[in-house]
Amino acid sequence: MEKTVQMYEGKAKKVFATDDKRFCIVSYKDDATAFNGQKKGTIMGKGAINNRVTNHLMKLLEKNGIPTHFVEELSDRETVVKKVSIVPLEVIVRNIAAGSLAKRLGLEEGTKMKRTVLEYCYKDDELGDPMVNEYHILAMEYATKEELDLIAQYSLKVNQVLTDYLKDANIELIDFKLEFGKTEDGTIVLADEISPDTCRFWDSVSGEKLDKDRFRRDLGGVEDAYNEILKRLLGE
Amino acid sequence: MEKTVQMYEGKAKKVFATDDKRFCIVSYKDDATAFNGQKKGTIMGKGAINNRVTNHLMKLLEKNGIPTHFVEELSDRETVVKKVSIVPLEVIVRNIAAGSLAKRLGLEEGTKMKRTVLEYCYKDDELGDPMVNEYHILAMEYATKEELDLIAQYSLKVNQVLTDYLKDANIELIDFKLEFGKTEDGTIVLADEISPDTCRFWDSVSGEKLDKDRFRRDLGGVEDAYNEILKRLLGE
Ligand SMILES: Nc1ncnc2c1ncn2[C@@H]1O[C@H](COP(=O)(O)OP(=O)(O)O)[C@@H](O)[C@H]1O
Ligand SMILES: Nc1ncnc2c1ncn2[C@@H]1O[C@H](COP(=O)(O)OP(=O)(O)O)[C@@H](O)[C@H]1O
Ligand SMILES: [Mg+2]
Ligand SMILES: [Mg+2]
Repeated sequence: MEKTVQMYEGKAKKVFATDDKRFCIVSYKDDATAFNGQKKGTIMGKGAINNRVTNHLMKLLEKNGIPTHFVEELSDRETVVKKVSIVPLEVIVRNIAAGSLAKRLGLEEGTKMKRTVLEYCYKDDELGDPMVNEYHILAMEYATKEELDLIAQYSLKVNQVLTDYLKDANIELIDFKLEFGKTEDGTIVLADEISPDTCRFWDSVSGEKLDKDRFRRDLGGVEDAYNEILKRLLGE
Repeated sequence: MEKTVQMYEGKAKKVFATDDKRFCIVSYKDDATAFNGQKKGTIMGKGAINNRVTNHLMKLLEKNGIPTHFVEELSDRETVVKKVSIVPLEVIVRNIAAGSLAKRLGLEEGTKMKRTVLEYCYKDDELGDPMVNEYHILAMEYATKEELDLIAQYSLKVNQVLTDYLKDANIELIDFKLEFGKTEDGTIVLADEISPDTCRFWDSVSGEKLDKDRFRRDLGGVEDAYNEILKRLLGE
């Protein structure tokens, strides 16, 4: 599989076309951004860690019945994935109140939600990824009812599988963001990444944050946290 | 029915207890506020107009199968209503994009939505009435699933009845806000008000705004607009 033209450069990854139009190659960068791109920095080694952690978790999810875009890890930073048209929604899954949810609803960070909460944001940097509900999604045709139901069902299943798996690594899954895409034949698959950039991981015992909040909130030890996640999940 | 103690003074109304604990008396003020209380003013005669318009529409809705809190109009500004415990949600029903929706989703004001959109905001002045979805509502226990389903069903029915009725008065119903409450025995009823303060009414022909946007946006002719709605709906 050979990279051809660069299709897209995002905040954390580049996406390349390949000589086979069913696939593309994702290349993970060390660039870090937060607050819709307002804060910028570098997290040394992040690209390689996020690539490997994402692929590890995507394989786990496939084994548990979630279709994903994962095809093959090429190198430390590069992975072949199925080319999809991204459903323009960020799906946020929340078990414990943190970040924007805690603030908006006046909850103390760390409060357990009585049920898992799904939130949808319309993926649009210019609009600042506004929160939308099912009515907006259907009225704006961001997804069909059938697609949205499947996305919600997969998201809750991903939560179940990851929560259980991470517990064994002494990691509490607080919340995370997913993206889904449609392959040429319309199949919905889990796409993008699952990494310390897109999840809140807290140490189950100490409560220590092992994710991008260390960068967002200038807590220090950013690289150490990413390395710790790699070690706990891939044993290295 | 006699007013006893004042239970609550809100931004637009006062609510009094009565000698019968099943009922309270609502008294409409001329005070106007916008942007979560940041802008303040007076709209001469508004209290009486909103009282009469609300009661007129509540009666229409009752006739069409929607249970409401309306009991009896006492005077120009005062009405007896069933005392309810308010479900802490503002339900916003949107047919045409305007206001915050237009801004958040990058739509031109006046764009027809492909389907009616319902939005829920958690009624909390200190938090600025944050938008919430069904998952938040159930997790936070703002309402039960059964209550929420009924509230959504009633809201869409209210929209249907009001849209048709207003069309005959040459008024286009752009969007509106509803509140629901629970009576002692748990019955969900439509409460609060339905008025130019809580609806966007546009003249069907000229598109002229006949609602609180004239106050919010300093368009002038505020009192005239409220009087025009009274005239078109109650013929006076
Ligand atoms: N399998 C895929 N096929 C096509 N595009 C994808 C796939 N997986 C993820 N993407 C998209 O590629 C981009 C990844 O780059 P990223 O740096 O995360 O972008 P962004 O700054 O938009 O978050 C995102 O826009 C993401 O939606
Ligand atoms: N039938 C009812 N029983 C009890 N409270 C009601 C009823 N109808 C409306 N309310 C509440 O009375 C208050 C009306 O005053 P208002 O000036 O609109 O208040 P606010 O500033 O909170 O919007 C609101 O809090 C509303 O929820
Ligand atoms: Mg991204
Ligand atoms: Mg009010």
